[in-house]
Amino acid sequence: MSEVKSLSHLRAGVIGTGFIGPVHIEALKRVGVQVTAVCGSTAGATATAEKWGIPEVHGDYDYLAMCASPNVDVVHITSPNKFHVEQSLAALSAGKHVVCEKPLGMTTAETTPLVVAAAASDRVFAVNYMCRFFPGVLQMRELVQSGKLGKIIHVQGHFFQDWLLKETDFNWRLLADEGGKLRAVGDIGTHWIDAVSFILGARAESVFATLETFHKTRLRPSGPVQTFTEVDPSEMTRYEVDTEDFASLLLRFNNGVHANASVSQVAAGIKCSLYIGIYGTEGSVRWDLQQPNEIILGRRDEPNQILQRGSAGFLNDVAHFTDYPAGHPEGFPDSHKMHCRAVYEHIASGETTPVLFATADDGHHEMELCEAILNSASQSKWVTVGT
Amino acid sequence: MSEVKSLSHLRAGVIGTGFIGPVHIEALKRVGVQVTAVCGSTAGATATAEKWGIPEVHGDYDYLAMCASPNVDVVHITSPNKFHVEQSLAALSAGKHVVCEKPLGMTTAETTPLVVAAAASDRVFAVNYMCRFFPGVLQMRELVQSGKLGKIIHVQGHFFQDWLLKETDFNWRLLADEGGKLRAVGDIGTHWIDAVSFILGARAESVFATLETFHKTRLRPSGPVQTFTEVDPSEMTRYEVDTEDFASLLLRFNNGVHANASVSQVAAGIKCSLYIGIYGTEGSVRWDLQQPNEIILGRRDEPNQILQRGSAGFLNDVAHFTDYPAGHPEGFPDSHKMHCRAVYEHIASGETTPVLFATADDGHHEMELCEAILNSASQSKWVTVGT
Amino acid sequence: MSEVKSLSHLRAGVIGTGFIGPVHIEALKRVGVQVTAVCGSTAGATATAEKWGIPEVHGDYDYLAMCASPNVDVVHITSPNKFHVEQSLAALSAGKHVVCEKPLGMTTAETTPLVVAAAASDRVFAVNYMCRFFPGVLQMRELVQSGKLGKIIHVQGHFFQDWLLKETDFNWRLLADEGGKLRAVGDIGTHWIDAVSFILGARAESVFATLETFHKTRLRPSGPVQTFTEVDPSEMTRYEVDTEDFASLLLRFNNGVHANASVSQVAAGIKCSLYIGIYGTEGSVRWDLQQPNEIILGRRDEPNQILQRGSAGFLNDVAHFTDYPAGHPEGFPDSHKMHCRAVYEHIASGETTPVLFATADDGHHEMELCEAILNSASQSKWVTVGT
Amino acid sequence: MSEVKSLSHLRAGVIGTGFIGPVHIEALKRVGVQVTAVCGSTAGATATAEKWGIPEVHGDYDYLAMCASPNVDVVHITSPNKFHVEQSLAALSAGKHVVCEKPLGMTTAETTPLVVAAAASDRVFAVNYMCRFFPGVLQMRELVQSGKLGKIIHVQGHFFQDWLLKETDFNWRLLADEGGKLRAVGDIGTHWIDAVSFILGARAESVFATLETFHKTRLRPSGPVQTFTEVDPSEMTRYEVDTEDFASLLLRFNNGVHANASVSQVAAGIKCSLYIGIYGTEGSVRWDLQQPNEIILGRRDEPNQILQRGSAGFLNDVAHFTDYPAGHPEGFPDSHKMHCRAVYEHIASGETTPVLFATADDGHHEMELCEAILNSASQSKWVTVGT
Repeated sequence: MSEVKSLSHLRAGVIGTGFIGPVHIEALKRVGVQVTAVCGSTAGATATAEKWGIPEVHGDYDYLAMCASPNVDVVHITSPNKFHVEQSLAALSAGKHVVCEKPLGMTTAETTPLVVAAAASDRVFAVNYMCRFFPGVLQMRELVQSGKLGKIIHVQGHFFQDWLLKETDFNWRLLADEGGKLRAVGDIGTHWIDAVSFILGARAESVFATLETFHKTRLRPSGPVQTFTEVDPSEMTRYEVDTEDFASLLLRFNNGVHANASVSQVAAGIKCSLYIGIYGTEGSVRWDLQQPNEIILGRRDEPNQILQRGSAGFLNDVAHFTDYPAGHPEGFPDSHKMHCRAVYEHIASGETTPVLFATADDGHHEMELCEAILNSASQSKWVTVGT
Repeated sequence: MSEVKSLSHLRAGVIGTGFIGPVHIEALKRVGVQVTAVCGSTAGATATAEKWGIPEVHGDYDYLAMCASPNVDVVHITSPNKFHVEQSLAALSAGKHVVCEKPLGMTTAETTPLVVAAAASDRVFAVNYMCRFFPGVLQMRELVQSGKLGKIIHVQGHFFQDWLLKETDFNWRLLADEGGKLRAVGDIGTHWIDAVSFILGARAESVFATLETFHKTRLRPSGPVQTFTEVDPSEMTRYEVDTEDFASLLLRFNNGVHANASVSQVAAGIKCSLYIGIYGTEGSVRWDLQQPNEIILGRRDEPNQILQRGSAGFLNDVAHFTDYPAGHPEGFPDSHKMHCRAVYEHIASGETTPVLFATADDGHHEMELCEAILNSASQSKWVTVGT
Repeated sequence: MSEVKSLSHLRAGVIGTGFIGPVHIEALKRVGVQVTAVCGSTAGATATAEKWGIPEVHGDYDYLAMCASPNVDVVHITSPNKFHVEQSLAALSAGKHVVCEKPLGMTTAETTPLVVAAAASDRVFAVNYMCRFFPGVLQMRELVQSGKLGKIIHVQGHFFQDWLLKETDFNWRLLADEGGKLRAVGDIGTHWIDAVSFILGARAESVFATLETFHKTRLRPSGPVQTFTEVDPSEMTRYEVDTEDFASLLLRFNNGVHANASVSQVAAGIKCSLYIGIYGTEGSVRWDLQQPNEIILGRRDEPNQILQRGSAGFLNDVAHFTDYPAGHPEGFPDSHKMHCRAVYEHIASGETTPVLFATADDGHHEMELCEAILNSASQSKWVTVGT
Repeated sequence: MSEVKSLSHLRAGVIGTGFIGPVHIEALKRVGVQVTAVCGSTAGATATAEKWGIPEVHGDYDYLAMCASPNVDVVHITSPNKFHVEQSLAALSAGKHVVCEKPLGMTTAETTPLVVAAAASDRVFAVNYMCRFFPGVLQMRELVQSGKLGKIIHVQGHFFQDWLLKETDFNWRLLADEGGKLRAVGDIGTHWIDAVSFILGARAESVFATLETFHKTRLRPSGPVQTFTEVDPSEMTRYEVDTEDFASLLLRFNNGVHANASVSQVAAGIKCSLYIGIYGTEGSVRWDLQQPNEIILGRRDEPNQILQRGSAGFLNDVAHFTDYPAGHPEGFPDSHKMHCRAVYEHIASGETTPVLFATADDGHHEMELCEAILNSASQSKWVTVGT
């Protein structure tokens, strides 16, 4: 384990007890942070507290009570997307640091005032684009920003999943009212764009997008459902789908780099592949979430290299965000752990460590991108981001 | 070896003695065809004849003499792109079957009359889009057209090389006058599109393209050069580049399928990766020229499968285009061999075997696509192919 | 996250603060167990307690004090190998459950009475052969023991590392007095054998071994050193090495299966590859720690399959030992987490859950194997285990 | 295509028209050699001649007639193993060069006089251990023999197939009388050992072997059968098997290197995997026939490298045995082509090129190895080769 300043004096409260809430709890415990409070439905919050040994329970979705708790330094927001902004504002108002799940909100209209509030506050505000904290992503960023790949020419990649392939697959994210007008792009495509922006140290300034809804209608269960559970099709209702199944995104970054990303939640057999290839004049790097512990470094006139996390070719400042020796694979949960480490060390240090995590402004930028993507797709033309 | 009708009574003559001419000669010999004549520069043709034991030499680029030879049944055209049409027309006129290297020509204006001439002739006319004859590609076609993948949703892939990464890399294809206005797309992108069309049994009807010339100028040697040889930069001249280094292509096929292809000749470390992923409602298939002997078959609710050439999962009609047992890898030269097998068996059978190879019409369609791609890129909008 | 009985009422104390102690602490926190005490050097234990927020500190290596603590239910022993037995006996005497790092001890003479003590006790005793808890290993076990692979024919694999490649690499494990007479085999080879035994549901009954010490002498630092840190060669002393660098192990299991394992700590470029291939009459399975989230299932007359953790092909009882959805990679730390889950649920359930973890008897069996391996290597003949 | 001296004036005659005979014919044609004669059953030889356009046919297995032909310079022997020696002696007697399929014969008693005859002759004698001519194997040899990997420590690998997994799989090689007493080892294991010897520039001097016949009895068809064809089990007869299904081989080379190879023809799902890992003090190399165009170069303190055939990291003298550019995969048939190139250039050059191919002495050495392996397995002890 690398030596890090103790985070054991910081105390977190988590709003939300669905899939991602416990992911935060586990990550927090792994970096030594105390998880002192949980908020959700009364049943959900009570069960979560019992499972994890969390002393303070705020049932009935009473997030204001949690924000007011003297036993909480940092509020984690893992509730559905449409509650992110109001809960973020409440937590900031209460003087708490905030770690908000992505997306930051539903629209830029909503997130604009939050950016203002976060800027005005002296608290830390982080959006959980945790893909930045895969050591492979951090290392690709180093290789790009140090100039080791020369001038970057183009970027290509994808984010493919298959969990919404069938018309009987249901999740609240399928509904624009619940998850936002963009679904595949909003849910996973923004991870791709955020990671690429982070690596390049640049932002997309214009986009061309094609959005396709393959299943014009789908079937949904009558009652409420969780992600990743099975439902009997005979008890389902057909409804019109107002979010896209897949997309092609062309992006022009403000450093001149062209990027091409395919995004799909209907790619059979591919459970969760986030793939990024960065091509420069002196070399390329390729990385896939499916094999997160290595990067392929491509060279024209020398052999390609396999950079292994924890060994030669991974730089020192990346080492702070990996704990296990080379050859001992880390994975998806470790990226959440390292996101927590970055945010909490920033807090513990009095905000003196580098801001590697996504800020409110970064979260807002992703909202602007989503709106530009929607505009481009509906108008079939290149659209400038933020207009 | 699978049983095939003997092709040893058919006689081929090859125009061109550069990189690809000998690839044809080798492929022809592998299927038992006699190579009876070669045409090129006097020195080149003589050397090629000596090396391969070819009896008839037509030097001084005298392709008309070869077309007139009574010892040639089929003329192979492997000369530079700008000679393809005139040599094809001459061979057809002389009553020869023709195997023409791709692209079929420089413009649709040029290839339109060739399509007419080929249709009017009773000779076989093939364009060497030999990627169709990788067993993996034939098998993907079977899986798609038999419906085993359900309804196709989208296609994603790339064709990446790095041999033109540096500004000092030179080849005649860099010059629009020699190779055509499209370079990366024309040279390798059309292989990708042809293979996908072949697999889908459909044609692209509209395109959106971004073409980028990263090196606005490059250096070239003073004298003539061959592909894949090294030149001293100090003896080079700077010139303006009028062809693209890389492209993003979005395609809408006439069966409703959306495709996204990245094409690059400046992708460091990637020597020659032609990758195709086809995503359907019942499954997906993925294949890369870099690992040509297997296909990954993706499923949502069952384990993914690895289909190995020559074993279970590869169908009978594909078996005719593979000779070696499972686990004994075939490669790039074998695709040329199998293209020759398909064409020559079509000739030997009196044109009764299925036309799996690309025809003059297919070659012309690729020219139309190139022109639509150029239009789309210059106008930044979707363009209908063939208009 | 799968639903598990809350483990938050169980309290662990950890002896040892080197590399592996904190790995236990992190794993315990991930399953909701309270870590209430830590024991080690005064400085080490204090620092570890501060980092992780552990209330009770037992410095000066006072493990008896920890064993006596009323705030500890389970004692984790992560001290050097030579202390394992005495600390285990002390913890059992004090009425604590025990999780002991492997190997269980230095010799069978030492571990024999511990097996007796563990059997006489009503406490749970586990040895941390946590490789059993990679979901891939659990799944291979299911496939073998359910008969899905038919009758097992042979097993082949390796455990390769490179961290002791150079003569200047130093660690206490190199010294027979500290780590035991077998080093590569004792340290990593036993993981391979334990995992294969677990998968087969059988034990090796005879062995043939070749042990090789490539570096007859090595250099060591004058002072004490930690694993995985760098030392200046000029300050080192040459010493004779009395443990092996690599080994070939042939094993005959009591169900007739033949196994061949290569073990090496001098395999350049391979950081930590534990690879197991199991070959049966109906199919084979192959798994590598380097890609822990998938198993390749081989078939003779059907396509091979890729079984992905968390998706079709991974059975229900394996699912209890994985938390993240398919495509979200888990890794090495997760295997420790799942080992803790298995042990603590066994405790929490009143010892009613299946004993999947390695017991004192399993740990003792590995010691017997090591002694048989030493005998075989010195006599160049097959040796029966346990004689 | 690399420039090679023309081989088009050399004329080959091939004895045998089964699976491997046509593989030779194709390889010969690819390097420009004339195939002027074929010998086999009257029907087989006639059909083969017709398919490939071979002018001279020697039916009724009349190999003496072929050896006497004035139109043949080199005789290729691809008949069953038990005829290799007598046909080799006849061809040498007739003053022909010889390319004999492996194994060289059935016993060392048989091959000893052949070694004498070959040495006494001024003709070239090659045994078709063509695995030496995969560019990856040639390149591994360069890396080892140039010292780039430092001192070699150990070698590990396997040769696995599954075509004899089922008791109903039949081939003449299963019968000791037809193929020799060793089957898996003789058929594929010797390829592994020959390739490793070639790479190391050393010979195995002692062996320890375990041979296992999993199927004590098998079923065979009543009539004669070809490899790779299907037979109806109900028309089969049960017989006792006198050759091994799999083996573990430990080898000590005369340069001190230890090697461990697993050999199996009952490894479900693995069609033909020849894998070699060479581990040295400065680096390791790993290569698999399944991905023949690349080598993984392992380093302790630098990133591992992927050496791609035809590009940086592959040396000049290897380049002579590869024709296609990097990224254009070559495969199994190409190894036969390159073996022919090496042998025929040796002939054409007046025996001045390096003898990279296996000689009669090398073929005899493999027979000695087989006998030592049989002795070791029956006596369960290390046996010196050649005693």
